Formats: sequence, structure tokens, C-alpha cells
Amino acid sequence: MRTRVGIIGGGPAGLLLARLLHRAGIDCVVLESRTQEYVEQRQRAGMLEQGTVDALHEAGAAERLQAEGLVHQGIELRFDRERHHIDFPALTGGRTVTIYAQTEIVKDLVALQLADGPPLLFEAEALAVEKPESDAPVVRFLHEGREQTLTCDWVAGCDGFHGISRDAFPADVGRSYAHDYPYSWLGVLAEVPPSCDELIYARGERGFALHSMRSPSVSRLYLQVPGDTDPDDWSDDRIWDELAARFAIDGDWTLHRGPITSKSVTAMRSYVHEPMRHGRLLLAGDAAHIVPPTGAKGLNLAVSDVRVLARALTALYRTGDTQLLDRYSELCLQRVWQATRFSDDMTRMLHAQPNGDAFDDRMQLARLRRITASRHAAAELAANYSGLPLPV
Amino acid sequence: MRTRVGIIGGGPAGLLLARLLHRAGIDCVVLESRTQEYVEQRQRAGMLEQGTVDALHEAGAAERLQAEGLVHQGIELRFDRERHHIDFPALTGGRTVTIYAQTEIVKDLVALQLADGPPLLFEAEALAVEKPESDAPVVRFLHEGREQTLTCDWVAGCDGFHGISRDAFPADVGRSYAHDYPYSWLGVLAEVPPSCDELIYARGERGFALHSMRSPSVSRLYLQVPGDTDPDDWSDDRIWDELAARFAIDGDWTLHRGPITSKSVTAMRSYVHEPMRHGRLLLAGDAAHIVPPTGAKGLNLAVSDVRVLARALTALYRTGDTQLLDRYSELCLQRVWQATRFSDDMTRMLHAQPNGDAFDDRMQLARLRRITASRHAAAELAANYSGLPLPV
Repeated sequence: MRTRVGIIGGGPAGLLLARLLHRAGIDCVVLESRTQEYVEQRQRAGMLEQGTVDALHEAGAAERLQAEGLVHQGIELRFDRERHHIDFPALTGGRTVTIYAQTEIVKDLVALQLADGPPLLFEAEALAVEKPESDAPVVRFLHEGREQTLTCDWVAGCDGFHGISRDAFPADVGRSYAHDYPYSWLGVLAEVPPSCDELIYARGERGFALHSMRSPSVSRLYLQVPGDTDPDDWSDDRIWDELAARFAIDGDWTLHRGPITSKSVTAMRSYVHEPMRHGRLLLAGDAAHIVPPTGAKGLNLAVSDVRVLARALTALYRTGDTQLLDRYSELCLQRVWQATRFSDDMTRMLHAQPNGDAFDDRMQLARLRRITASRHAAAELAANYSGLPLPV
Repeated sequence: MRTRVGIIGGGPAGLLLARLLHRAGIDCVVLESRTQEYVEQRQRAGMLEQGTVDALHEAGAAERLQAEGLVHQGIELRFDRERHHIDFPALTGGRTVTIYAQTEIVKDLVALQLADGPPLLFEAEALAVEKPESDAPVVRFLHEGREQTLTCDWVAGCDGFHGISRDAFPADVGRSYAHDYPYSWLGVLAEVPPSCDELIYARGERGFALHSMRSPSVSRLYLQVPGDTDPDDWSDDRIWDELAARFAIDGDWTLHRGPITSKSVTAMRSYVHEPMRHGRLLLAGDAAHIVPPTGAKGLNLAVSDVRVLARALTALYRTGDTQLLDRYSELCLQRVWQATRFSDDMTRMLHAQPNGDAFDDRMQLARLRRITASRHAAAELAANYSGLPLPV
């Protein structure tokens, strides 16, 4: 098989890139190792920056998002049994964020792709990217029981942190940076209307808790837990009791309880691989970098990589201009490092530190107090959370 | 001896309090354990917030400060061999900071005090504060070879981190919070005009360096060094070479070298004691809290404590109103914790971490880059550095 852009990975990054390239008239093929059903059910993020919403519009994939997405005007910070609203439009000159689950984005993109898009192969397991330094890199993959090859002008590695794309970087090309946080998140989905209109980030001595939602009838909740937590040790009652304790404030507020339909534990990690390009192989999204979920940046970063990449490839095929492609890694990494910093700041400010002391607790509280007292500090949070500008 | 307010410690906090009380017609006595010569030579801070300058005006002690103080419009951040100016007036609506050495403030205050002020006893070593819970606390002290007592309405503990005032808090009253940073500063005074118009905070892989000044002809310079550094291991040449390496940028800039007249190593520590009042004993300045010097907050915090205390005691003696005195600790601690947070942020952002890894380095750089890219982030730095408002 031959194509212009071979895309490894049919998550939101790969699928969005395929749509954007398709609309620019650039031939591509998407290889996804899992089944369609698996991809469309994978629980992930759900908080979209304005730029992510814009990109889905640009890709012609925002019809249902526009109808069903919940526009949020900010977030709530809880600490010391108080609640504080951070008003994004007031602090950023009108920017908002939108709640729309990643699973729904994937469903929308898959449907478009299967209807009129370039080839999207499920159960097509990429094995290796070969000759990335050449003019015709090759993706070897397993599909329908046999090994096949996809020869490309360019390969986009959108296959996530555990994907194979990054392995095609020679050991002496670039380097990676990583930090593991000494706690995890126990995430649950519950069939109950959210107890809040906006996300609640709660900091307390019992640990961090986050109240999010997937839709007006589905709540998404998280608890900070030790890294080695077995979700089966957490009964539904224990989860609701702990959530209620961590969200408690002085004043009226009730946590609605309901049937929990899914439970899982996620490690908290920062990781960045530099550079994001080697020859004609370009990484995007989790294949190149992951952030702890506290800043809601993972999906949004993947989308901003893809926007830069789509523009760079479009410029190349329209006019032969390689300027953007040549700067792809540098442009993406500026934003990646800022999002990693923000995610790190939010994570450290909100989680109980297993090895922390009373001084660290006071520093967390002083940081939170400053955000609620200073317009500049609040505006910095709002600007980062609602999304820094695209570098191109 | 009997007085209304017994002040332990003749550093800037105690002396300024004495002046402010004197001008309000409130009787007080200052006990200083060292000699006048010693107190007037002790090398300390030299960066004054606007509020500190205002307080010295209020105390009638700003004549020489106004003539000789160097008004600075901001600071310079250096990293990645680049220089970035943080413009305080533009970012804060006109606020500046002033360079005027603590030794000079002390000389000015001592001169006023000896000319017309309430008693200031040198070589008067406070031994203990007794009966702070009573209406008539007593300071026992050694002076002119014999033990004496000073009976007071109120005792102000302005005797620094190693003073005896804090010892009068019973063990079960309050608690302290501390953090030791794993590095120190080697500070030098040099008889050479500063190589810069404003302070330079330089971050690099060799460690942090700070270029400050005491006057147009005296430079004050600091190098981050390991905690157990012996200043004698650092020859003048080694110091200048290391400073030159840490301040190096791409572009023209020259570090002026000159005779080094003093060298010392300072540990980096955060410490806060809560509360700052027990009965009729009130702590102010380093007696209650210390910060690492990176934020230039130590002297300024001492002055803001003293301003609150002077207002509280003035209100009491003028009208019998105890409201401010009752809230003294709470009011001061709000500002103390914010200054401690800012000092902690600056310290962590600028120092090479002995146990840090490449990820930590990237986080530091991302934080510095953000300050130079975002008006809100820069304005937060400028607001904190130039001084948060007094709580009263």
C-alpha cells in the first residue's frame, strides 16, 4: 500500500489529523490496532479548550459537539471547607471550555471517516516504522492475519505513550524527560446527574478529589489514592463516603450518589520526548508526551500538535513550503512544556503529598489563597486552563 | 524599670517600632544585646518595598534614604544565556523598589533614637520574658554587669530567629513550620561599582547567582553553594570566575571585578511560628518567621509586622480599642505566608536542585519562560516582589 501520510493510531489525534488532511486533499491512511468498538468505548478526558473545539469545527466534526457539549464558564476550587469560583470569561476576555467526552469525539470522527474519509483500518497493528530518514518511510503492520507494508511520504505517530512510533527514533536521537508523581487517581463513572454545574477541584488533608461530568446524566469523579491501589478494594459506598468527605464545605452542598458503572486507577506521570520529529516521522499527542490529568491538558495537547502538523503538511503539499514542517518539533514543544508546567503546578498544589510535611501543606494553601485573592494569579490559571494560543 | 512597651532587639524591627511608638507618644524601651558598632555593621538585606520606604518616612527616618537610596524600576532575569527585564512600574501601576542597605537604616534609626528617642540600651542582653499572660509582663536582662528587670504593659519580641522572645511561648501554644533548602548562598561585598543598574537573578546549570549592590560604589554578589561550604575555600579569583560564568549571556556584558571585603555563607531556610502573639508578648520580624533571601522579603516582612503592631498599640493607647491587637497575629500571618510562598517559588525556580533531574530543570525553564511571555505571570512576580499591600 502507498499513501502520502501514514497515520499510526486511530485515537482522537490520528483521526482528527486524517480529517484535516482529507479536507485539504491530502491522501492518508489510518492504522488502528484495536477494534472499532474498543476505540469508541475507551474512557479518557472530556474537557476541551476553545482551540480544540475550533479544530473539530475545522475538521467538520463538531455537529454533535455543538448540540451536546456543555459550555463551562470556569472551575471551582475547594479548600479549607470554602468554595471559590474561577471565572474564565471574565479573566481571559471571554474564553470558555467545553465538556464533551473523548469517546464521543472518537465516535464522531470514526463515523465521518467511514462515511467519506480516507482508509481507516481497525485491527491493523503497526509493528515498526522503517527508514524514517529516507524519502519513503515504511510502516510494517499486521492486518487480516498477514504482515503488510504502508509506504508513505510522511508518517504521523499518533499511537500513544505505549505505541511503537517512538521506537523508530535511534537511541542517540533526542532524549526524554519524565517525572512520576507518588499517587494515582481512582476514577469512577456514575449514572447520576452531576452535583455541580462546573468542575470542582478539591484540596484537603484526606487527599485531592475532582468532580467532573460526561453529560447531564453521567458524573465522572476522581479520588487521589496511593499508587498501588487496587480498585476492587474500593466498594461503591466507600467511594461515595470518601468523595463526600473530600468535597465537604461549610454550608449547604450535597453530593448526589448513584450506580457506579466503571472504576479504574490511573498513574500520574509527566513525560516529554524531544524532539518530536525524526526524518519523516512526526510524533503527535501521547506518543511524544503525557501529563498528569490535573490540568485537563492531555487531549488538548494532542489536538494542538495535530493542528500544527496538519497546517505544516498542507503548506508542504500546496506550495512546497517546508518551513512549518521544519519547525514542527520546536513549535509543538513550546506549548507542550508550558502545558506540562501548568499540569505540574496544578498537581503539586492540589494533592496531599505522601512525604510532605506541615510546611508543604501551608505552601499549597498559600498558593490557593493567592489565586483567590489576586486577579493576575487567577488570570494565569484561567489562561492556562482554557488553553494557551496555538504557536502558528 | 517600668515602661509601656518593652522592645527586645535593636535591629531594624525593634528600632523602627520604637520610633513609631515614640512619635505616637507611647513610652518604650529598647534592649539590644550587642554593641552599637556591631549592630551598625551587621550585613543584611538592602531591597526595600515601597511600603518599607513609606514606613521609614512615617518614622521620620527617611532623610538619608531619600537622598542616597537607589530607586529600581524592576529586576533582570537571566537564563539560557538570555536577559529579560521585569518592569515593575508598568506591571504594577507605578510601584518601584529602593536599594538602601539595612546597615544604613539601622544607623539612621540609632542616631534618631540616641538624639531624642526613648531609651535604647546596648549590651543589654534579654534573658527571659516572664508572665506574658499577665497584665504586667517582665523582661529580665543583663546590663552593666547585673541582672535587671523591665516591667511592661506589652513586650515586643524583635530579637530575631535566635532570640529569646519566642521561648516564652509555652510548648503547647502554637506550632512552627520549617523547611530547609539543600543549598546555601556565598555572599560577598566588593569595592567595585555594580555591573548592572538593577538586580540580576541568574539561573543556570552551574547554580544560581544574584548581582545586587549596596551603593553606586559597592557591589553585593551571591553564589549558590553547597550547604556545608567553607567561605575560605573560595579565593577571590574563584568567586569572580564563577560569577562571570553564571552571569554569562549571548551578547555583550561585563562583570566588573574588584577587591572583596567580606565573604560569608548563609543557609536557606523557611520558618514560621504560629501564632505571633501570646498574651501580652508580640513577636515581629525574624523572631517569628524567616524566609530564604531569594525574594528579598525578610526585612520587608519585619517592617510590615512593625507597622501593624505600631498601629495596634497606637489604637489601644489612644482609644482603648483592642481590635487590631487582637487580630495582630492573624493579620501579620496572612502576609507572612504569602511572602513565604513567594520566596519559596523564587527559590525553587532559580536554584540548581542538588537532587533534581533533567525534568526539574525543564520545569524551572518553563516557569521562567512563562514569566517572560505572560503579562499576568510577570505582573504576579512584580506585585509580590514590590510588596503586597499592608493588611490594615
